Amino acid sequence: MPAFAAATPDGALAALGDAGAVRVDAGLLAISTDSFVVRPLRFPGGSIGELAVNGTVNDLAVSGARPLALSVSMILEEGLDAAVLRGEVGAIAAAAAAAGVEIVAGDTKVVERGAADGMYLCTSGVGLRDARAAVATDAIRPGDVVLLSGPIGEHGMAIMLARNEFDLDADIESDTCSLWPAVDALLEAAGGELHCMRDATRGGIASALCELARSSGVSVLVDEAALPVAPAVRAAAELLGIDPVHIANEGRLVAFVAPERAERALAALRAVPGCDQAATIGEVRADPPGMVLVQTSFGGRRVMDQLVGDPLPRIC
Amino acid sequence: MPAFAAATPDGALAALGDAGAVRVDAGLLAISTDSFVVRPLRFPGGSIGELAVNGTVNDLAVSGARPLALSVSMILEEGLDAAVLRGEVGAIAAAAAAAGVEIVAGDTKVVERGAADGMYLCTSGVGLRDARAAVATDAIRPGDVVLLSGPIGEHGMAIMLARNEFDLDADIESDTCSLWPAVDALLEAAGGELHCMRDATRGGIASALCELARSSGVSVLVDEAALPVAPAVRAAAELLGIDPVHIANEGRLVAFVAPERAERALAALRAVPGCDQAATIGEVRADPPGMVLVQTSFGGRRVMDQLVGDPLPRIC
Repeated sequence: MPAFAAATPDGALAALGDAGAVRVDAGLLAISTDSFVVRPLRFPGGSIGELAVNGTVNDLAVSGARPLALSVSMILEEGLDAAVLRGEVGAIAAAAAAAGVEIVAGDTKVVERGAADGMYLCTSGVGLRDARAAVATDAIRPGDVVLLSGPIGEHGMAIMLARNEFDLDADIESDTCSLWPAVDALLEAAGGELHCMRDATRGGIASALCELARSSGVSVLVDEAALPVAPAVRAAAELLGIDPVHIANEGRLVAFVAPERAERALAALRAVPGCDQAATIGEVRADPPGMVLVQTSFGGRRVMDQLVGDPLPRIC
Repeated sequence: MPAFAAATPDGALAALGDAGAVRVDAGLLAISTDSFVVRPLRFPGGSIGELAVNGTVNDLAVSGARPLALSVSMILEEGLDAAVLRGEVGAIAAAAAAAGVEIVAGDTKVVERGAADGMYLCTSGVGLRDARAAVATDAIRPGDVVLLSGPIGEHGMAIMLARNEFDLDADIESDTCSLWPAVDALLEAAGGELHCMRDATRGGIASALCELARSSGVSVLVDEAALPVAPAVRAAAELLGIDPVHIANEGRLVAFVAPERAERALAALRAVPGCDQAATIGEVRADPPGMVLVQTSFGGRRVMDQLVGDPLPRIC
């Protein structure tokens, strides 16, 4: 905890009591938690500390909650290089500042050599449900337009290449970032006509779309040609035989918006820094309920499956 | 997350969105987090799951906050026995129900064999500062009476013996429990005259008292003869050459109360189930500031030191 107190000098941690504190208005409090076990700890475009902050911030944001405060708990393996620890404490503080959240509580445990793999992080976050938000996982309706906030597959591909398990080298950086600015813009542009959002993490946008098609009992038709994919990611994915829709992202969301507000929402999203490649990638139909279909570039249709199992473990 | 959803069927997790939710009134929101890496996972009187719930509930409680909701994040080692996992999910659900808190968010990560030691848990909790509470770590005043909620050293000794590293066998069970009922009783009996509370976990009551003597700039004089210690704990501690004041507890608190409310506070504490052995263990003086002194049974005085380092790793 002292390490965090030093890195966030003005924060509530200065009191070093048993709990941190934030003042809240009455409302619906959103609470989210995630553990991070990514390997390697640092990778092009980010690190475990940055991922831990943005991952929890994003879970709150896509729930329609403005992130307020985070807690960070670290499990460290005995013998971890102190410079690595300092680096991640700095990354956590910087990512929290960038996302506009305060770190108000922390904990550190050390386990023996061999009882962990360097460092695991657990972040939890609280946020207040935004008054403009009416999003829910069962609120998607036939006719809704599907928006995507940016190119897919960059985080997962950056991790895969950083592991050096493939004889591949490409200039791909993780997409890790706070999605609150994107959510804020969508809420402002679409309000109650924004029906649902989800950050497309493990399992890629395929998992996010399949889960939401089921929870809302609708069908999603994705236009394959409209999916933004960076050329380097597309090339690496082809070489490895992976579909970019199955690769993890850590700073991308899909949003479902009623058609009358879709154009305005897309324009608002594109105005957010980092979201200039946001695109309309499909639309919602009534049938077949619970399924995601892909309109291929050749005019055919196929089912977009959710990956079963975890082909890319420890991606976040 | 599905495992938690099954174990807490009526909870907010049923929606399985990206964040859980609780409705709150305006106020000061307390936030706490802790990782749990205890070894072994099960021990007389408790298990890692029970500890993870009570530990975070207690950090909120001693901050004067009524615990509202918890998140639970699990890091599991590949190959962990499914029965062990089910057992801990059940223990978490039972402890949460006993403590009156809802588990509203969860996450599970699996790491490869050898990359963790069975199971680590991270719990985070939120609570609203109780209107009766005026506790702070710098609010202890000379003249305050020091109360202890029950016998010390049982959790740490139970873990030490459960590891079978010593050729010792004794009937000692962990003291893990929710301290909210004790805090509630103290707040009701002493209100603003309750100046500070702390749960005496790692480092025992010695660490708790030393930290608070420093943060309030006061001296604490402890009456050694007044410390409640179970005979089995006292005997094992003597054999192992450990002072019970340095042994971890997971269900004991120290409280500092203005003298005019001390008797009433002690009576209220003793009426709480499990706190019938609560005792007055000392008083606060002005000098020497920042120090804890022990009045021994033989009439002498010595300094009660805070243990440096962690002689009993992975105790929680």
